[in-house]
Amino acid sequence: MSRTVYLNGKWLPEDAAKVSIFDRAFLMGDAIYEVTCVLDGMLLDYAGHAARLRRSASELGLTLPLDDDALLKAHHEIVARNQMQSGLIYLQLSRGVAERDFVFPPKDTPPTLVMFTQAKDVLNNRAAETGISVALLPDLRWGRRDIKTVQLLYPSMAKMEARSRGADDAWLHEDGFVTEASSATAHIITTDGRLVTRDLSHALLAGVTRASVLELAQSHGIEIEERAFTPDEARAAREAFITSATNFVVPVVRVDDVVIGDGHPGALTQQLRQQYIATQRATALAPA
Amino acid sequence: MSRTVYLNGKWLPEDAAKVSIFDRAFLMGDAIYEVTCVLDGMLLDYAGHAARLRRSASELGLTLPLDDDALLKAHHEIVARNQMQSGLIYLQLSRGVAERDFVFPPKDTPPTLVMFTQAKDVLNNRAAETGISVALLPDLRWGRRDIKTVQLLYPSMAKMEARSRGADDAWLHEDGFVTEASSATAHIITTDGRLVTRDLSHALLAGVTRASVLELAQSHGIEIEERAFTPDEARAAREAFITSATNFVVPVVRVDDVVIGDGHPGALTQQLRQQYIATQRATALAPA
Repeated sequence: MSRTVYLNGKWLPEDAAKVSIFDRAFLMGDAIYEVTCVLDGMLLDYAGHAARLRRSASELGLTLPLDDDALLKAHHEIVARNQMQSGLIYLQLSRGVAERDFVFPPKDTPPTLVMFTQAKDVLNNRAAETGISVALLPDLRWGRRDIKTVQLLYPSMAKMEARSRGADDAWLHEDGFVTEASSATAHIITTDGRLVTRDLSHALLAGVTRASVLELAQSHGIEIEERAFTPDEARAAREAFITSATNFVVPVVRVDDVVIGDGHPGALTQQLRQQYIATQRATALAPA
Repeated sequence: MSRTVYLNGKWLPEDAAKVSIFDRAFLMGDAIYEVTCVLDGMLLDYAGHAARLRRSASELGLTLPLDDDALLKAHHEIVARNQMQSGLIYLQLSRGVAERDFVFPPKDTPPTLVMFTQAKDVLNNRAAETGISVALLPDLRWGRRDIKTVQLLYPSMAKMEARSRGADDAWLHEDGFVTEASSATAHIITTDGRLVTRDLSHALLAGVTRASVLELAQSHGIEIEERAFTPDEARAAREAFITSATNFVVPVVRVDDVVIGDGHPGALTQQLRQQYIATQRATALAPA
C-alpha cells in the first residue's frame, strides 16, 4: 500500500512526491527535521517536538510556513490519511529551491516542507526486552548538534561501523566524554543509583524524550546528574540506556566488550520505560 | 533559457529534473559532489576532479554508475548541450532512494547521479582584480572534510556570517590553526617569500586547484611549506590568497580588520593566477 505524504501543502502518493534537484536540502544539507511518535493514532510529546522544530528553524533563519494550528492539524491529518496506529511522523523543512550558491537565497524563497509516515510497532520492541550493545566511536559530527539538521551522514556511517563491529548501535565520544548515541540520547545509572546524562550544549540534541524521562525519574525520587560522563564511567555503570522519540527507553547491556550490570536490561531502566509509556498514553494528543 | 541537466542517464530541462523525497541526499546528506571548471568550452583539471570524485565515492562505499569514458563523455556532452563557453559543471552522486534509515540501503540500490551547469565568466573576475576580504570564524564542520560531501550548511552559514561582518568570505580556524576558506583552499606568502599552505589531512579537502598551483609555484622556484598556519601568521603575511576550481587564484587583501601587504593583490599571487590560467589553457580537455 502506498503512503500518502505531504509536500508543500499537497497530499500525494509517495511515488509522486518529488522535489527539484535544486532544493537546498538535496544540494547542501540546508534543512531541519523532526520525528514525532504515534501510538494508538495519537501524537506523543507533540509540544516538545513542535517547540524544537521552531527552535531549529529560528537558529538557521528558516521559516515554517504553517502556524501552530495548521502544523498540528497536518500531523493529525497524515495519521488519519495513512490510518496509522503506531509509528512515526517525519517532518522536514528546507530553505527551498534556488540556484546553487553558498550565499542563502532571498528571504522570500518558498521553503520546502515534507511530511511522511513510517509504521513501526513502538510498544513491542525486541530491543527493549533484550537490550542492545553499543560500540564507542569518535564523534565526528559538526559543532551545532543542538540544531536537528539533515546532515546525518556521520551518524549513518557510525551505525554501519557499529554493526560491522558486531554491535547494534554506536555511542559517540569527543574530548574524553560521551556525547550521544548515533540517533538517540545516551544515559547511565551509576552503581549508587544516580542517573547521569550529559548537560545540554551545542554538543548534543536537546532530546524531547530525554526531557520527559528526566522529569519522570525526578518525580520518582531518582537523583539526576546532568553532566558529561566518560566512556570509563559508561563501562562501569550499573545500567545504561538510550532515549529517543520512537525507541522510548531502550536498555544498553554491552559497551564495546564490557557487559553492563549482569548483561540484562536494568531494573531502573525497565521501570522508566514502563512509566514513560504509561505517561505518554495518558497525555497523548488525539485529533480535536 | 532553460538549462539541460543530467539525471540518472536522462537529459532533461532543468525544471523537469526532480528526485524522490526519499533520496538519501535530500533526507540525510548522504551524497558527494565535484565541480569542474569550463573555459572556452573545455574542461580544466579534469583528471584531478575525476580522481577525487572516485576517492570520495570509495571512502563512503558509493558506486559511480559511469566508467571513466562515460564520465568524461557526460562532462563534454553537458557543455555541448548547454553551449557553455565559461562556467562550471556540478556533479552529485547520492546513495539513492530508500526508506529513511540510518542503516545504509542494500548495496544494489541504484545511486542518484545529477549533473548541471552554471555559466560564469571565470576569467574576468572582479575579485581577482581587487582582492577579497575574509573574516576568521571557527570551523564547526564535521571531521571528514577530505570527503567532498553535500553537508554544506556550515560553510554556507559561515559565508553569511562573513558577509554580515562586512567581509567577502570566511577563513575557518580550529585548534589555533586555519583550516580552509568556506569553499576554497587558504594560502599565505610569508614576508620572506615562502608559500605556506596546510598539509593534507581529514581537516581539509585536497584541493585540485591547490595541487596545480603548488606544482606551478614549485616549478617557478617558490619555496613551499605544507603545514598548518595560525590566524596570526595570516594577519602578518605579505600576501594571502585562495584557490578553487572556479576562482582559480584570488588574492585576499584583508583578514578581519588587518590589511594584508599594502591592501592590493600581491605580486606573487597575481603571477600565480596568470600562470595558472596559461597552464590550464594549454592543458584543457577538448571533446574527442
